[in-house]
Amino acid sequence: MNESSHSSMSSSFLPPKCGTVEETETQNETVTAGFHNMSPELLQQLVYDALVWSSLHGLVVGDRSVQRSGMIPGVGMVHAPFALLPMVFPQSHWQQACELAPLFNELVDRVSLDGKFLQDSLSRTKKVDIFTSRLLDIHSKMLEINKKEEIRLGLHRSDYMFDAQTNLLFQIELNTISSSFPGLSCLVSELHRNLLRHHGEHLGLDPTRIPANNAVNQYADALARAWNEYNDSRAVIMIVVQTEERNMYDQHWLCFTLKEKHDVTVIRKTLTEIDAEGELLPDGTLLVCGQAVAVIYFRAGYTPNDYPSESEWRARLLMEQSSAIKCPSISYHLAGTKKIQQELAKPNVLERFLENKDDIAKLRKCFAGLWSLDDSNAVKNAIKSPELFVLKPQREGGGNNIYGDNVRETLLKLEREGTEELAAYILMQRIFPTAASAFLVRDGICHQDHAISELGIYGAYLRNKEKVIINDQCGYLMRTKVSSSNEGGVAAGYAVLDSIYLN
Amino acid sequence: MNESSHSSMSSSFLPPKCGTVEETETQNETVTAGFHNMSPELLQQLVYDALVWSSLHGLVVGDRSVQRSGMIPGVGMVHAPFALLPMVFPQSHWQQACELAPLFNELVDRVSLDGKFLQDSLSRTKKVDIFTSRLLDIHSKMLEINKKEEIRLGLHRSDYMFDAQTNLLFQIELNTISSSFPGLSCLVSELHRNLLRHHGEHLGLDPTRIPANNAVNQYADALARAWNEYNDSRAVIMIVVQTEERNMYDQHWLCFTLKEKHDVTVIRKTLTEIDAEGELLPDGTLLVCGQAVAVIYFRAGYTPNDYPSESEWRARLLMEQSSAIKCPSISYHLAGTKKIQQELAKPNVLERFLENKDDIAKLRKCFAGLWSLDDSNAVKNAIKSPELFVLKPQREGGGNNIYGDNVRETLLKLEREGTEELAAYILMQRIFPTAASAFLVRDGICHQDHAISELGIYGAYLRNKEKVIINDQCGYLMRTKVSSSNEGGVAAGYAVLDSIYLN
Repeated sequence: MNESSHSSMSSSFLPPKCGTVEETETQNETVTAGFHNMSPELLQQLVYDALVWSSLHGLVVGDRSVQRSGMIPGVGMVHAPFALLPMVFPQSHWQQACELAPLFNELVDRVSLDGKFLQDSLSRTKKVDIFTSRLLDIHSKMLEINKKEEIRLGLHRSDYMFDAQTNLLFQIELNTISSSFPGLSCLVSELHRNLLRHHGEHLGLDPTRIPANNAVNQYADALARAWNEYNDSRAVIMIVVQTEERNMYDQHWLCFTLKEKHDVTVIRKTLTEIDAEGELLPDGTLLVCGQAVAVIYFRAGYTPNDYPSESEWRARLLMEQSSAIKCPSISYHLAGTKKIQQELAKPNVLERFLENKDDIAKLRKCFAGLWSLDDSNAVKNAIKSPELFVLKPQREGGGNNIYGDNVRETLLKLEREGTEELAAYILMQRIFPTAASAFLVRDGICHQDHAISELGIYGAYLRNKEKVIINDQCGYLMRTKVSSSNEGGVAAGYAVLDSIYLN
Repeated sequence: MNESSHSSMSSSFLPPKCGTVEETETQNETVTAGFHNMSPELLQQLVYDALVWSSLHGLVVGDRSVQRSGMIPGVGMVHAPFALLPMVFPQSHWQQACELAPLFNELVDRVSLDGKFLQDSLSRTKKVDIFTSRLLDIHSKMLEINKKEEIRLGLHRSDYMFDAQTNLLFQIELNTISSSFPGLSCLVSELHRNLLRHHGEHLGLDPTRIPANNAVNQYADALARAWNEYNDSRAVIMIVVQTEERNMYDQHWLCFTLKEKHDVTVIRKTLTEIDAEGELLPDGTLLVCGQAVAVIYFRAGYTPNDYPSESEWRARLLMEQSSAIKCPSISYHLAGTKKIQQELAKPNVLERFLENKDDIAKLRKCFAGLWSLDDSNAVKNAIKSPELFVLKPQREGGGNNIYGDNVRETLLKLEREGTEELAAYILMQRIFPTAASAFLVRDGICHQDHAISELGIYGAYLRNKEKVIINDQCGYLMRTKVSSSNEGGVAAGYAVLDSIYLN
């Protein structure tokens, strides 16, 4: 979609003045809920109210332009970027996504137990991606010493986009490590519900059609119950963090909830600190700074940048060797890689892990086309019609995906060179979500633009030796971004937080 | 007190590291609650927790160093400066201050009805202070047209300091307009209670000894009940604001509470906007932007800076002429001036307004020595011992007070010149509060220093033609600042928000 074909409008954040009502240009297409009933006056009021609400309720992030904002809580805060109104989303697809959460929870758990499958599937990736290689090394060591994780905690988020051409919901990726925004996503749902309670009549919108979002409480519950399974009342939950983190308030909401609701002590440590302060007792107990750690919750460690030296890898290994409950374990982490996603999409692979045919069918239905570059047919198609494909490097973090003509160029180059590098990528069917008019609020300023959304469904899974204790869908994250920057995924680039309006 | 005689210590805000425990230097004197039990490790943890709590719970202000932070909500936020722990305060004096609130509420109301007293008392001030003069002009006009305020709403705050030499509580001033921090002061009490709930055992402190602070709810209730008395369900509450306001979140908490608990619409307008958009109907109804205004709540208009042109004075007059309930009316505003405070302290003046001898005695007990510069005896004493006096200009806003040798110099100068200017000042007994060791947190950094505190008690008063509807003490504001900057009042300069710990 060509951005220049649509007028983009900035709105002042000041309280509405009288006598400034103008016609809003509306378009005959899918739109943000309430869009058509929006006068400029009402728009200004909504933006102002939303900014105030965010400030009072901790819907905040560290401001990039303030130096200490990623290090020190309480300084350099700015409201988290948000969509002013929830995005319309079909009830049936919402239901579908929710139902998938426990299935993916179960699948990840089963896959994690199949060490050979993980090692085999990633064996070629290992040769070309040093990061995956290091993770696999730790995984191998655990296989060698026959390390068992009897209590297993998964806090996943499965991300979907709705494809307008096929009318289907497709999984973009499954995050098994460091799923972000359980805290702030709940607040955005609450923000939208609050705006609709006060202005819903004017907008023709019903606040009850924004689904409840309880991610932060359910994540906190799962962490607390895992802590409880570990069964040492003096032990703490350790959150592994990056040195600088502008999204710290999202994490703080989770820690705050843990402390207030469950009275569990949470400590924050970087990988470097864990290497310096961590110690393994003979019985497997992990001590950090002298405190026994019951649960390790990773909000770092998912990207090569988090391992600038051997120190951080030592810390990762130390944790993996311990009896602490790891969220995620190295196996859970690997089970969430793109290569495994692609392997699971192959015929008859899901059947290795799950028995129930209905469950398998449900999972498969949300799989987009996924191919390794060994698949010469897929590669041929992608060279012919690159606009229908996304080339995804195994490397973590959005923004590295390859689109359009670059798909063709990269594939041709890889073919010419015939290198091992082929294994560093997977090919994915490109998804074409519907663009909708939306109001995106960032840095106190509201822009109207055409936007696309990605729905993340949080899942929590906990089991011990005997039984599954938790296997739930728990809340959601909607992210919306300007559609002209659509490169097949919303996570990359500047997405704003959003919620959904069921229709 | 000489600041350099005490070590000042800055504490990092980062989560505590292990192995960094050092001895804290303690002094044998009055201290912040819990001070003696504080290890550097615990201190770091408390600071970190407090910064997180503030960010998540809207205990924030606009950051001076960010340009738009006084204009646009949600940008350039920083935690409000706060004391890390509550200040110890004697139970008996707390009780005394609370009991005074309804008496001052009543006194202001009685004084406001005596137009002649206000005009006469301020007649000399009028000649030298143009701001008071303009207020008196409006007041005269209202007397001329015999304007009655049948529904009267007062939201006051009486500020006290505890004098260590006499062991008495003295009133510093009575704010009858724009009493700030009803929102944030409640949050600081909650912050301290939260810290004590989690760390109170280590500190030897009991969270229940921090008195409940319900200022924001009670202020909102009073505004809502006034709105209700006005009896027009379509009318709004208008908050008169400054163009730039870094303390906007304090105001937003009040407006948010009004909206959520009472479903009353609140609009924010500057005096300039009210002049442009306001209109008086023949029946006295004030329309602003076409909306009838039931209650006008001033958070601006108390300083000459808020009236840069005739436009703002027109707005003030327009509001005063209307039937809207003014918080405060011009009479309430004038009843809170320093000159009136000094007049009320004269013998037999309280007796003009109140009947109950006990009430009169209670009020008088908290009056510090207050003299006009007509009192040659007082002036002589002040020239002789200037360190025992504060010279206060009638002008509003702290920071203008004169202390120490400057008292002598100014008095001698005024005597030499023999001008009318004498009437622009009052003399007040200087109060010597106990300095206590405290941790002051500002901009993410904790400083240990010797500090003094000022206690403000909020009062709410509402009556209609028939009866008093509300006459309550409602919450409190504790403000603490470095004692070396003590110039007889905490409000001036950089005070941090605090709460109290009863002993």
